Amino acid sequence: MVGSRAEEMVKRLREMQNATPEIEASAVVSVDGLTIASALPSNVEEDRVSAMSAAMLSLGERIATELNRGMLDEVYIHGDDGYVILSAIGTEAVLTALAREKAKLGLVFLEMRRAAEDISQLID
Amino acid sequence: MVGSRAEEMVKRLREMQNATPEIEASAVVSVDGLTIASALPSNVEEDRVSAMSAAMLSLGERIATELNRGMLDEVYIHGDDGYVILSAIGTEAVLTALAREKAKLGLVFLEMRRAAEDISQLID
Repeated sequence: MVGSRAEEMVKRLREMQNATPEIEASAVVSVDGLTIASALPSNVEEDRVSAMSAAMLSLGERIATELNRGMLDEVYIHGDDGYVILSAIGTEAVLTALAREKAKLGLVFLEMRRAAEDISQLID
Repeated sequence: MVGSRAEEMVKRLREMQNATPEIEASAVVSVDGLTIASALPSNVEEDRVSAMSAAMLSLGERIATELNRGMLDEVYIHGDDGYVILSAIGTEAVLTALAREKAKLGLVFLEMRRAAEDISQLID
């Protein structure tokens, strides 16, 4: 990945987080679990986010296929302390965001879809 | 499981589906992937729903813990042909629903939470 592209992705991730402060952390991860770009606070481990994203994406795709839900688009996991949300970027990568418990989900999804669309232009 | 309890659960699942016709299929599954009760159309395999639910629940719990999101509450998978939604019933079971692409998610979650609450009384 050319340096400037990765920088542009990080910039786009930061813009998303500024627009939606309930998103605490975000990363672009390849389907094989490697980080492409990330905007994470120091208490969130990049490798952990990437590994979990790839595992989730892989199982999500399998389940969507097995239960006839078509091509995977989004996955979300809601715990009592917040959300992990994955939004597919084409077929090769995923945008992962960690959001606070109080997040307005509709807004988070809207901002994530916009960011995923912009980032897909940078990956192609 | 006493027969009448399983029957009551099936009845509650059917009520949920009647209240929210976008929910096409639903089941109560134990954390180890065994079906406790189900209301599935003939084209949906019970074993497949149960196996996928248990796999999703297991990974969802792991991810919620690893990424500090607390105890798992809900998981959803959105494909371009619809949704798979899991809602925890206590710590031993999960309510899984398959919903159509056009489903109003807020309504689906509301009905699922109500059903999960009622069903948790039948499991205890």
